[in-house]
Amino acid sequence: MPLSRRAFLSTVGVAALAASARPSARSRRAPAIDAARLRRRLEHLSTFGRPPQGTFDSGVSRVAYSDADVAARAWLIDEMRGAGLRPRIDPAGNIFAPWGPENGRPPILFGSHIDSVPSGGNFDGDLGSLAALEVIQACQSAGLTPRRPLEMVVWAHEESTAFGRGTAASRIVAGDLKAGDLDQVWNGVRRADGIRRIGGDPSRIEDAVRSKGAWHSYLELHIEQGGTLDRAKVPIGVVEGIVAIHRYDVEVVGFANHAGTTPMDERQDALQAASRLVLAVRELVSARQGRQVGTVGRLDVEPNSPNVVPGRVRLSVEFRDLSEATLVAMGEELRARAEAIARESRTTITATLATTNPPALADPGVQTAIGRSADAAGLNARRLPSGAGHDAQLIARLCPMGMIFVPSLGGISHSPRERTSWDDCGRGAAVLLGAVLDLDQRSDA
Amino acid sequence: MPLSRRAFLSTVGVAALAASARPSARSRRAPAIDAARLRRRLEHLSTFGRPPQGTFDSGVSRVAYSDADVAARAWLIDEMRGAGLRPRIDPAGNIFAPWGPENGRPPILFGSHIDSVPSGGNFDGDLGSLAALEVIQACQSAGLTPRRPLEMVVWAHEESTAFGRGTAASRIVAGDLKAGDLDQVWNGVRRADGIRRIGGDPSRIEDAVRSKGAWHSYLELHIEQGGTLDRAKVPIGVVEGIVAIHRYDVEVVGFANHAGTTPMDERQDALQAASRLVLAVRELVSARQGRQVGTVGRLDVEPNSPNVVPGRVRLSVEFRDLSEATLVAMGEELRARAEAIARESRTTITATLATTNPPALADPGVQTAIGRSADAAGLNARRLPSGAGHDAQLIARLCPMGMIFVPSLGGISHSPRERTSWDDCGRGAAVLLGAVLDLDQRSDA
Repeated sequence: MPLSRRAFLSTVGVAALAASARPSARSRRAPAIDAARLRRRLEHLSTFGRPPQGTFDSGVSRVAYSDADVAARAWLIDEMRGAGLRPRIDPAGNIFAPWGPENGRPPILFGSHIDSVPSGGNFDGDLGSLAALEVIQACQSAGLTPRRPLEMVVWAHEESTAFGRGTAASRIVAGDLKAGDLDQVWNGVRRADGIRRIGGDPSRIEDAVRSKGAWHSYLELHIEQGGTLDRAKVPIGVVEGIVAIHRYDVEVVGFANHAGTTPMDERQDALQAASRLVLAVRELVSARQGRQVGTVGRLDVEPNSPNVVPGRVRLSVEFRDLSEATLVAMGEELRARAEAIARESRTTITATLATTNPPALADPGVQTAIGRSADAAGLNARRLPSGAGHDAQLIARLCPMGMIFVPSLGGISHSPRERTSWDDCGRGAAVLLGAVLDLDQRSDA
Repeated sequence: MPLSRRAFLSTVGVAALAASARPSARSRRAPAIDAARLRRRLEHLSTFGRPPQGTFDSGVSRVAYSDADVAARAWLIDEMRGAGLRPRIDPAGNIFAPWGPENGRPPILFGSHIDSVPSGGNFDGDLGSLAALEVIQACQSAGLTPRRPLEMVVWAHEESTAFGRGTAASRIVAGDLKAGDLDQVWNGVRRADGIRRIGGDPSRIEDAVRSKGAWHSYLELHIEQGGTLDRAKVPIGVVEGIVAIHRYDVEVVGFANHAGTTPMDERQDALQAASRLVLAVRELVSARQGRQVGTVGRLDVEPNSPNVVPGRVRLSVEFRDLSEATLVAMGEELRARAEAIARESRTTITATLATTNPPALADPGVQTAIGRSADAAGLNARRLPSGAGHDAQLIARLCPMGMIFVPSLGGISHSPRERTSWDDCGRGAAVLLGAVLDLDQRSDA
């Protein structure tokens, strides 16, 4: 007779515990994730920002600072209080809740975010945030006292939808705060007012900045957002790091002219040249061994009229890889290709390196702890980079960081069709629990 | 001693006359274009819609039904009255002015338009309109009485800027008027109200429709808008016809996904597929012998974000040629290429033939008359198609049609940089004069 899901997950919890945590004297049973409660909370959270008359499958629009975001945060704070936690909101709007011994040791921090992109899914951020609460409740239920404080966090404003910049509140915690940042206006709202709406305090924003070593380590459970784990049928990903990003703004200038009266061989067609460059980006990225990616995601034509030969095209080229050297090499190849295309098409092409995000490598010790936790739970795990950005990349500046990925069905994310099986949600939470306890138990060794 | 410009152009007039027109008994001298007056009028017309603090070189924005259009039309009507004409405005807003004998014979019609695109030039339409007035004044000054009436026309609303459709008022004259056309709203203005603003009468719009044979023939002098004549240093173009246009709306559907987490070989990138199609359009057009052109002028990406693999691209493909068979063949090749690209890129591509304009062939007799007029003036002439649309293509449905082109410097048009030398303006007007008189003299033979 096969195990029921609940029985299976309890087994996962026991296994994780056996490998890594020693229950205190008060402990009566091994800590285990309550997968049914995790699912119920994910389903309830999905109602904040759900389209009218929609269902769970309709996805969610819970953009940072929106009414839905404010309401979801209030609900989650209630849930945390219900679990005996005392959540506090930092000046940037992040929700923190420490639990465990008050012995002054740097806590083990874990969590994620609950804001979404417009028409996003119900797992991105939500899973890691609610699993963090499960980890603490699992320890509470088992009567387990960790050696150092555990701390749950729900980062504010992770998605780049709001104000065009993501990981915005963890960025402040990491000390990356520029004059004028809070005066940005987006959709008629000043960012300082947005922060105030979610309970932050822009007047003392500097107090949100934390110093290096403020935490023992940081762990984040998240959906993969890509299809690697799903295709490989591997339930757990151990993240090696978050890729660096180099983004170029490219401008192709030709000459706009009448589409009826300009012979083919007299044209300086900016879109023809741009199309060659779009194909060149894919070629140069794919020709290289490795997991680097390159994307032309934005492309704007001027004057963009059916009867005018395009005079100007602006496009974005984005390269991502764990190795910055690879990004630099691809950037050089981009410029060489652009130069050749410009010469042949009698256009001018300029490629400007507009933004660079450095890579954030996961700590080897934290990766090992995650791997041990998965092993102990009898779950296959695979190491992989994160192609997407996460709050973890900012907090990696302050303490050793690690991330756990669970499969995204079909690799789909930022979409109402974003899915992770409920079983995989429970497995990911169990591996998070095991890894937290592993780090806690070994941190004094 | 070289001839002065005035002396040169008088010579052109005499030559044209010698070849084709017999002065009446009252004639004291050969009809000749007053090139200096033509230039003065072109310069004055350029002030209606000129940018603030601009000069002639700043171009003009005289969009149909705008204040500048209304003012320019009022000035031109005054000039026509000053020349003894009695202009009338038809219900569609076109300005007609017959001159000569009232013998009931169908008149020879000639003219052009004076509305412009935004930031357009000072020759497109203006030259043909003001040259038409010169033709009549040349006949008047020479005391010449033609055998049949001559009629000048200034077409309203030629450029497709207004209401997204060009040659709109000559189209009505040709009988192409659909229910609801006048109820279209553009920039907050109903088209019927626009027509009323320029002196038309939408309540009796059907009266603007003219029947086949209403005119003996139609002639239009226009700038080439392409660079063929300028490059060849040939001052006169004899238009063989106005090309047919087949315009396709193409949609490429891939799958939008995260640019960081989607490996290159898992992508269904609509922009990669679209870029291949953009290049294929140029290839398939250029591989064929002939003067056909093909253009991708509009291309819109969704969601058009640097960090999202494009999920959908919409683009326009426009083919132009005098031969509809060539257009059909190119359309078939477009579909075949699209099918292959879709298969290889795991996208779907649909190409819908959205609009077709039939070709309008110039009448061989009128072409011959223009050629004789150029010969008589000692001017090289070259036959060529018109890649651009003109009112002439509509009026070709009602009577034999011909067009005279003069060189556009650098092939530039629809731009403040649009230029035709003053000498070429005068030459074009002289050839128009000669061709009108040639047709008049031979029409009774």
